Amino acid sequence: MKKRSMPLSKVYGLLEPGPVVLLTTAWKGQPNVMPMSWLTMLEFSPPQFACVVSNRNHSFDALRKTRQCVVNIPTAELAEQVVGCGNTSGRKVDKFKRFGLTPLPAATVEAPLIDECYANLECRVIDTRMVNKYSLFVLEATKAWIASGAKRPRTIHHEGRGMFIVAERRIKLPSVKL
Amino acid sequence: MKKRSMPLSKVYGLLEPGPVVLLTTAWKGQPNVMPMSWLTMLEFSPPQFACVVSNRNHSFDALRKTRQCVVNIPTAELAEQVVGCGNTSGRKVDKFKRFGLTPLPAATVEAPLIDECYANLECRVIDTRMVNKYSLFVLEATKAWIASGAKRPRTIHHEGRGMFIVAERRIKLPSVKL
Repeated sequence: MKKRSMPLSKVYGLLEPGPVVLLTTAWKGQPNVMPMSWLTMLEFSPPQFACVVSNRNHSFDALRKTRQCVVNIPTAELAEQVVGCGNTSGRKVDKFKRFGLTPLPAATVEAPLIDECYANLECRVIDTRMVNKYSLFVLEATKAWIASGAKRPRTIHHEGRGMFIVAERRIKLPSVKL
Repeated sequence: MKKRSMPLSKVYGLLEPGPVVLLTTAWKGQPNVMPMSWLTMLEFSPPQFACVVSNRNHSFDALRKTRQCVVNIPTAELAEQVVGCGNTSGRKVDKFKRFGLTPLPAATVEAPLIDECYANLECRVIDTRMVNKYSLFVLEATKAWIASGAKRPRTIHHEGRGMFIVAERRIKLPSVKL
């Protein structure tokens, strides 16, 4: 998918609406991917956010040890692969091969970009003090990519038990000081 | 709006998809409300989540001092009031009166429920160690209310600059172990 560099100051607009993302890591040359919905913005610029990665996830060790990852944002076309990635473990399966996802080299981290995702955020872990208690990692985006001409992407938002909201309808309201 | 008590174990399904919420607080008998999009689940049961409330917000002091709040979830019918609440300050305005929102007494906290919101989560602040650095409060829901027969609510998800995704289309995918 053809992508362009995106200003880091615009990253919040991709994550604030709460889409499911695919977190990629790499450890000893072995890439892995997991879906993630438990994420919040913390700061606009530089874009910082916090996300929950459980120590039951195979990605946990790679994230904690390498302190690098990529937050990839899929659209509805990838919904089945997202669910599949959530129902398999990188301990047993190469999820990229299994689900036909294409890893591409990132510019600033060792973890791969997922070509099929419309946006990719290269991130570094900047704070692990909340990991032991909440499995909460604080990330800062170091580089952002977005598909050329990506307008109104059909992101998916998990409601639990396989139900997803699909971002199709949008409204614009004037943000006027009253 | 007629509401019923909701099992706390189901609360994550309301917040995980990332809707804008209206945070209500009360301080010295004065209720206030602010929109909030920077929130993530931390734990399923008891439902714990983390949210960002800046010390520039009038709600910050009430939340920190009372350690109580209600997370109210609006639907698209309330979109203009949500934006209005974000463009005014409780320092100057009674937002309930200004925007026609009805405060109702909660069962376990002093902060009010917003009658017009389809779901209301009564919460206590359980951890403030991330407030100084990230304005991040850790909350635990103590009581949850949902509108009777609320199915597929049209929540709104903020993309920035007045753009919102409206939850209208949903898909269900089987969550099968592969």
